[in-house]
Amino acid sequence: MSPNDGTVAGTGEFRLIEAVTAGRKQPETTLLGPGDDAAVVATPDGRTVATTDVLVQGVHFRLDWSSAEQVGRKAVAVNLTDIAAMGARPTSVLVGFACPPDTETSVVTELTQGMWIEAERAGIGIVGGDMVRADQIVISVTALGDLGGREPVKRSGARPGDVVAVCGRLGWAAAGLAVLGRGFRSPVSVVNAQRCPEPDYEAGLRAADGGATAMIDVSDGLLSDLGHIATASDVGIDIRTADLDVSSRLTEVGTALGADPLKWVLTGGEDHAFAATFPAFADLPEGWTEIGVVTMPDSGVTVDGKKYGHHGGWEHWR
Amino acid sequence: MSPNDGTVAGTGEFRLIEAVTAGRKQPETTLLGPGDDAAVVATPDGRTVATTDVLVQGVHFRLDWSSAEQVGRKAVAVNLTDIAAMGARPTSVLVGFACPPDTETSVVTELTQGMWIEAERAGIGIVGGDMVRADQIVISVTALGDLGGREPVKRSGARPGDVVAVCGRLGWAAAGLAVLGRGFRSPVSVVNAQRCPEPDYEAGLRAADGGATAMIDVSDGLLSDLGHIATASDVGIDIRTADLDVSSRLTEVGTALGADPLKWVLTGGEDHAFAATFPAFADLPEGWTEIGVVTMPDSGVTVDGKKYGHHGGWEHWR
Repeated sequence: MSPNDGTVAGTGEFRLIEAVTAGRKQPETTLLGPGDDAAVVATPDGRTVATTDVLVQGVHFRLDWSSAEQVGRKAVAVNLTDIAAMGARPTSVLVGFACPPDTETSVVTELTQGMWIEAERAGIGIVGGDMVRADQIVISVTALGDLGGREPVKRSGARPGDVVAVCGRLGWAAAGLAVLGRGFRSPVSVVNAQRCPEPDYEAGLRAADGGATAMIDVSDGLLSDLGHIATASDVGIDIRTADLDVSSRLTEVGTALGADPLKWVLTGGEDHAFAATFPAFADLPEGWTEIGVVTMPDSGVTVDGKKYGHHGGWEHWR
Repeated sequence: MSPNDGTVAGTGEFRLIEAVTAGRKQPETTLLGPGDDAAVVATPDGRTVATTDVLVQGVHFRLDWSSAEQVGRKAVAVNLTDIAAMGARPTSVLVGFACPPDTETSVVTELTQGMWIEAERAGIGIVGGDMVRADQIVISVTALGDLGGREPVKRSGARPGDVVAVCGRLGWAAAGLAVLGRGFRSPVSVVNAQRCPEPDYEAGLRAADGGATAMIDVSDGLLSDLGHIATASDVGIDIRTADLDVSSRLTEVGTALGADPLKWVLTGGEDHAFAATFPAFADLPEGWTEIGVVTMPDSGVTVDGKKYGHHGGWEHWR
């Protein structure tokens, strides 16, 4: 028997895997869950949608800013929004998890608890994973989804004249990050938006069914991510600030911190809202708001017809 | 413009992603490759087989023992064997990659080159990924596969009286590790077996088509992995050493290092051979060799009818 000193080294890999998987409910799409060489997931469409995102402690999250449960929820959520942004329904995730031997076992079980909470919220299964040793906590999540007969909504389908629309809050996570960065813990609403997005995974399906021509998950920032659509579609995009929802809560926080709330809305990342383009005059799906128009290729991404300073967006290793 | 000093920080995330994905060939199963929110992979069976494994520098590989290309090949191979061990054909991988900002760009491009080499060898696509900053190199690979109408071959289907068979070399990677651990670089054949397995991915398909009742990828060591089958199937397993292939090369290395080559064959990990059980009197598929028999539950995993010391097998954080 090994000593159980409350660390993962004391608990041991196999007992820890048992602790984080045993007794969990799986949805019907999980045909074979964790415990074998590989999982088996139903993808009746015959096409599997797949994406992966890696979260590193100290880079993507801080356990003094977020609870382990919030980090776990977020690690799953940020991947599921990428599936939803293709117009697919998420079915499952696999989790690669690395941590130092002296990591408290409770951190791992709380992280995993957060993953299961978000999985249940989305109706998906955690179907497989790997737990290994490393110098810092690294969480690698791969999400799978099913298209249910829809065509995938790519970034490349926007056409001049299409309308640009968003679904979900923008700027809140950036405001929360600014608050946390100044050493504050409130207002809780913006801080929690940074700690853990609560995406509406159905928004992507509604957009696909509503004829979206291009779609993206707003993870880097609205202008940056619309820039990805503009580049992939070879179009320009103009945003009308009058149509953006700059919440009074963001204005309050901006005033308190001496920051421009519109900048958070335009360039803040991590909200995991959705942005999409739709044919002109289309009826937008429930929850979607028109904020701009697709323009000609040479104009790039503009705000009220003009270039907007630095687009923001996150690039690693810089 | 940023300085290009030969590190990933100088190259920048977006240019690096471009460098490691541009111009690569994808198989027909890749319906949508890297560059969008998610990839789309053909899985005509309607069931997706999925697995994930994380490799950490200093834990799973050392760049002074292996070339970056070998590490890249291995990172893909060890995942594909898990897919093949279910009786599925690998279709694709997604790669989560973390490294320090001062990592040489050439290390990343060589790692990726190795991944593409193994992908081409297996006929699969590298369909997506994520590149982030961390304190050490962490490679998280998720592999997907298609069952092609077969039932997944689980660990739990072995029945008393079944024969136990293996396909692929055993003990070579452990011998290579022993050689490297003593500071030697030869014999190259065993050292390269440790650096980069060359699995026969078709072996799993042949076993499934040949009626395998249970199957596993031998990654932890033969006895340890057969132990997983024994536990999952609630059976015992007895191995006959006379039927094991202890190559003369392993005997030579064992003599030189004062080690028992049979121990490498029985307990050495990382060979990524396959072990499976088949109904008694079945004709074994091409390349498969009978090495033992499935016994009653209470007997555990034995060698020539007796317990074999410590089973070996790798457990993390110990």
